[in-house]
Amino acid sequence: MPFHLSADQSACPRVLVINPNSTVAFTEAMMSALRATDVQLDFYTAPTDTAPASIEGTYDSVVSAAACLKELRTEVGKWDGFVVACFSAHPLTNALRELTSAPVMSILEAPLLYASTLGSRVGILTTSPRWEPLLNHDVASLHLTGQNAAGVVSSGLKVLDLESLPREQVMRRLCDKAREELQDRRQADVIVLGCAGMVGLDTAIREACRPGMVVLDPVRCALEMCVSLIRIGGKTSKIGIYATA
Amino acid sequence: MPFHLSADQSACPRVLVINPNSTVAFTEAMMSALRATDVQLDFYTAPTDTAPASIEGTYDSVVSAAACLKELRTEVGKWDGFVVACFSAHPLTNALRELTSAPVMSILEAPLLYASTLGSRVGILTTSPRWEPLLNHDVASLHLTGQNAAGVVSSGLKVLDLESLPREQVMRRLCDKAREELQDRRQADVIVLGCAGMVGLDTAIREACRPGMVVLDPVRCALEMCVSLIRIGGKTSKIGIYATA
Amino acid sequence: MPFHLSADQSACPRVLVINPNSTVAFTEAMMSALRATDVQLDFYTAPTDTAPASIEGTYDSVVSAAACLKELRTEVGKWDGFVVACFSAHPLTNALRELTSAPVMSILEAPLLYASTLGSRVGILTTSPRWEPLLNHDVASLHLTGQNAAGVVSSGLKVLDLESLPREQVMRRLCDKAREELQDRRQADVIVLGCAGMVGLDTAIREACRPGMVVLDPVRCALEMCVSLIRIGGKTSKIGIYATA
Amino acid sequence: MPFHLSADQSACPRVLVINPNSTVAFTEAMMSALRATDVQLDFYTAPTDTAPASIEGTYDSVVSAAACLKELRTEVGKWDGFVVACFSAHPLTNALRELTSAPVMSILEAPLLYASTLGSRVGILTTSPRWEPLLNHDVASLHLTGQNAAGVVSSGLKVLDLESLPREQVMRRLCDKAREELQDRRQADVIVLGCAGMVGLDTAIREACRPGMVVLDPVRCALEMCVSLIRIGGKTSKIGIYATA
Amino acid sequence: MPFHLSADQSACPRVLVINPNSTVAFTEAMMSALRATDVQLDFYTAPTDTAPASIEGTYDSVVSAAACLKELRTEVGKWDGFVVACFSAHPLTNALRELTSAPVMSILEAPLLYASTLGSRVGILTTSPRWEPLLNHDVASLHLTGQNAAGVVSSGLKVLDLESLPREQVMRRLCDKAREELQDRRQADVIVLGCAGMVGLDTAIREACRPGMVVLDPVRCALEMCVSLIRIGGKTSKIGIYATA
Amino acid sequence: MPFHLSADQSACPRVLVINPNSTVAFTEAMMSALRATDVQLDFYTAPTDTAPASIEGTYDSVVSAAACLKELRTEVGKWDGFVVACFSAHPLTNALRELTSAPVMSILEAPLLYASTLGSRVGILTTSPRWEPLLNHDVASLHLTGQNAAGVVSSGLKVLDLESLPREQVMRRLCDKAREELQDRRQADVIVLGCAGMVGLDTAIREACRPGMVVLDPVRCALEMCVSLIRIGGKTSKIGIYATA
Repeated sequence: MPFHLSADQSACPRVLVINPNSTVAFTEAMMSALRATDVQLDFYTAPTDTAPASIEGTYDSVVSAAACLKELRTEVGKWDGFVVACFSAHPLTNALRELTSAPVMSILEAPLLYASTLGSRVGILTTSPRWEPLLNHDVASLHLTGQNAAGVVSSGLKVLDLESLPREQVMRRLCDKAREELQDRRQADVIVLGCAGMVGLDTAIREACRPGMVVLDPVRCALEMCVSLIRIGGKTSKIGIYATA
Repeated sequence: MPFHLSADQSACPRVLVINPNSTVAFTEAMMSALRATDVQLDFYTAPTDTAPASIEGTYDSVVSAAACLKELRTEVGKWDGFVVACFSAHPLTNALRELTSAPVMSILEAPLLYASTLGSRVGILTTSPRWEPLLNHDVASLHLTGQNAAGVVSSGLKVLDLESLPREQVMRRLCDKAREELQDRRQADVIVLGCAGMVGLDTAIREACRPGMVVLDPVRCALEMCVSLIRIGGKTSKIGIYATA
Repeated sequence: MPFHLSADQSACPRVLVINPNSTVAFTEAMMSALRATDVQLDFYTAPTDTAPASIEGTYDSVVSAAACLKELRTEVGKWDGFVVACFSAHPLTNALRELTSAPVMSILEAPLLYASTLGSRVGILTTSPRWEPLLNHDVASLHLTGQNAAGVVSSGLKVLDLESLPREQVMRRLCDKAREELQDRRQADVIVLGCAGMVGLDTAIREACRPGMVVLDPVRCALEMCVSLIRIGGKTSKIGIYATA
Repeated sequence: MPFHLSADQSACPRVLVINPNSTVAFTEAMMSALRATDVQLDFYTAPTDTAPASIEGTYDSVVSAAACLKELRTEVGKWDGFVVACFSAHPLTNALRELTSAPVMSILEAPLLYASTLGSRVGILTTSPRWEPLLNHDVASLHLTGQNAAGVVSSGLKVLDLESLPREQVMRRLCDKAREELQDRRQADVIVLGCAGMVGLDTAIREACRPGMVVLDPVRCALEMCVSLIRIGGKTSKIGIYATA
Repeated sequence: MPFHLSADQSACPRVLVINPNSTVAFTEAMMSALRATDVQLDFYTAPTDTAPASIEGTYDSVVSAAACLKELRTEVGKWDGFVVACFSAHPLTNALRELTSAPVMSILEAPLLYASTLGSRVGILTTSPRWEPLLNHDVASLHLTGQNAAGVVSSGLKVLDLESLPREQVMRRLCDKAREELQDRRQADVIVLGCAGMVGLDTAIREACRPGMVVLDPVRCALEMCVSLIRIGGKTSKIGIYATA
Repeated sequence: MPFHLSADQSACPRVLVINPNSTVAFTEAMMSALRATDVQLDFYTAPTDTAPASIEGTYDSVVSAAACLKELRTEVGKWDGFVVACFSAHPLTNALRELTSAPVMSILEAPLLYASTLGSRVGILTTSPRWEPLLNHDVASLHLTGQNAAGVVSSGLKVLDLESLPREQVMRRLCDKAREELQDRRQADVIVLGCAGMVGLDTAIREACRPGMVVLDPVRCALEMCVSLIRIGGKTSKIGIYATA
């Protein structure tokens, strides 16, 4: 049963946070970390039989997007907003935008958009080295490369390591990379955590950096940006690329 | 007395909405139109003796920014967030970012950032023809020109016309320009209202367009984006260009 | 049976042309139109039960890509090159590049790359108006927008109209749009036919334009570029974004 | 008395060099270093009570611009050209362009424009590390970032150090940074001195570099470019962004 | 005898204005129109046997550049600066920069650089329609395309028409195109005359436009920018792309 | 006698490979290395009296282009396609495109276009350090700089060293630079050999790199891309910048 539905039955807006891989532990980490006032938060995990346990490239993205769409297509009317919790230009984001006029927020876009108002040199801390070229590609294809982007730095940890390795070891590695590579060598002034699996780790990483550094948790950014759009009645346009086919 | 302080004395976050021109009617229009849950909203109007009645170019921007900074500089610690309510690359925005670590949101940036997630061809409806080249310049200097920007269209109305002309005449002009110039001729799928004085006009203009068009009120966008950043603990970075001098 | 395998059993290279929608008529049109010396040409049509009859947006792209990948994943070792016959940034292209080191050519990229050596102002003639914003988006995301791109022009015909309407009516519409919109109004000097369903129509459209106009059939371009890469031993790199996950 | 007026009463053109900070020593350094044939050179220093002693960010820029504009606004008709002697996208430049049709030259723009005709990889040598991100931002906002810009390098000296530290120590530091960081590590072929306070230091720094290196003094560049525009009757356009409001 | 040497034998700087086509009438028009204080102006016309009478494309550019280089190569030490009087990215410019450390100014670059400080939307008025795509290409290859370039407009006159047709007819055509196409339709605020053969026509064309329009004569711009560089000791860098081979 | 004409008198297409320098050894190296099925390959070497022995900058490019054009101008009708075998934005390429409607392929463009479909971070291995800035400039002027270009790396070998030094020494140097600088330090996933004189060295260099690296021989790429265009009837457009003057 892929949906974790909020028990809240009030009239407040409902947002669905979509984990497009099939690892329930990631969904649960998001459930623990996320709080949103006046919003009913539901969660969805991609099916284990058709979606991969973690998303490690374009093939995984396509297959996981299709797996989610199969289950979600007829259900999209139930929510007032969506968060796609894969830190990439995951095709589920634009596909959902075609299916609904509710706002759909990607955890790649939201923190980069916020960051553009908070600093001038944004760096991304990601998982395995494989994601460095992939994220450079995705950020460029979304035209989110700032003039002074600090770039993408791999922590050397795999996505699944974030859950399976001892927390202390994970944090030491992430803090070191954030401070040494992004802050000191590449002179980032904002660090975006580049994986849904890093939800809730922003405070510890910020404390490892110079005072004044900003560290953004992409899942919280995407949820909050989605909710803020709902509050102002923001809709996905149905005239241009997201017109219903 | 330039500040309109909220009577609310609760512990919820406080946001200051800054009108950098000296026309109180614009501030009052924003006071009427804005609602924000769980936020104490204060308003500020630039002083009549040093700031212009409306901002019509770079000279006005510089002078009004300095006038505001003189009064605000020692007060910035009182708020958790700021909205700069001039639809331009007004220099007050970056100057405030230097003075505080609270988020500072410009009504130019916020709607364009939201728009980038809602559509693919964003157009701006502004006031007098003079603002067409100025806004093209400002949008480009902020690197917010999308690949497929629909551009800036003047309504032919001056800023002060928005308050002084009959409402019906104002609305007909704005609706016609939005539909004919931005929607039909330039194929915008998102329209951003390009003046603080257009606060609250979004619904009427959207209704004049094709179903599925998105129309964004820049003041509400900036307030909501500012509040959402406060909710996630977002701060202005103190390491790069916004470091305190 | 989705594969049309060449009877040729010689040792020459084998290329698979993939129609990612389920309309066999499009595959057959390509089979009739394509000739390649010293190459064994096989064809594949996406399955009717899971893939759409034509691809009209991102949702269709994702679903059709996943449908093809399910059948092709374990078979990719059989071919020396692949052509993805959907005129878009179809996600199947990059997903296949992850699965194989054989060259994979998209019918969007190949004609635009050739065109950059043949002229200086390239225009695209597509099908329904819906594809104008989608192709503008896709071309930009691939960084194939030239400094002087003439843009994307819709013929007003739907993809399936290309097969179902009388040939004469189809040709008149395409020729008129190419000449009036792309050649005369937008001053294109190269016209790329923007749909796999237009395979073989290049000569007639060129004859409707000024002498010296170049009109490129995207399917033939992609096939020939793929074959030429095979001839020089060109491989998909396994180090960067296309590394096998 | 902020103006140092030339004693020359001939009919030759008059140019005002504006030091927008209040440190007279910088103005005097420019008075000593600048020579211009057939031009009456006047100098202006910003008022000590309202302008900062040196400009260290956006707040200082805005405040100093407003302080200058208050004194200059009604006087601009007296000069045939203006030089704004702050190496940044100082808002005084565009504000003056609105107030006059005489050419207004910024000491940031002029050397970068000249440099684009003299070499292919331009580097900037600035003062404190704080100016590295600020100048990267300003150069980008002016669209003066070349394809192969060598970037901005801080000498580690504060603006006021240029006047207060022993000359030998200042020169050694500047020469070392120019040679080691800009020439050797970043392969600049043109070096622009990035502070008005470096006026007259170009020869010594060039001699510390490889033969054939070009080092540009930004104040002399701006003055000469301004004078050259006066010679050809060049005016600030009154139609676009610099139209008088 | 291709050189017209100034009779002036004083010690002031010598500049060579190079007409890379073989039509002496164009050289003579420049001789009549140009004045430069304190500079010895020499002129050179490309040889009639090897260079074309006018430059109408890339072939002509290459052949004329080689013809000039053959005669100029061993002579370049005689001048302190050079103007290449063909309004294009003529290869003679960069070839000369390799041969000398004196500044070499192209009549394409100089007015566009000046224009970037005088307005925000620069348009080019050229001769025959053939030059529209060529100049779009050249301007883009020099990275001189502004964010808001008004583009290139052909007057429909051939280069040689400028000399052979009645002056009144030439002027009416140029004035109409400048006003109707560049000023009114494309909203240029600076117009650059796009042919050496238009030397001296700037005043008449400006008078045909709205008050406040700026019209730049490219030959005078290039000469004055060259002279101004000589005044500040500006040299072509010998380290990067212009290093002597 | 500058032409080496194929003995093949069949009806298959004829392609002329142009070596625009006068060193016959380079032409002979290409004759040995190139194979093309069903194509008659002819070769041309620039004349020793007017063209340089190797091309080391813009002056050499212009002079060699003119030397070739003088001999080729009246002969271009004899071939169905052309390869310009100088790894630069050699002006002969565009000049020939004006003279013929046959496809003209540059050995700079062809491998970069192919590479864009094979990987995401393309690096160029060139000869002497002088070519680093020149190629950065040329690649930028052709708008072939990808978002994630790995840049240009000099091997420290001069063009003529490739022929005169012991093969083993040449190969060791090239392999080391490819692996250490382009693969390891700059993370290229495709390496383009940046000199016609490196024809045939691709396999050895690829074997010195990580498995999965792609190394492209520019001469073979250009020949194959040219032949592939001939196969699909691709022509140089005669409407835009390549229109016959």
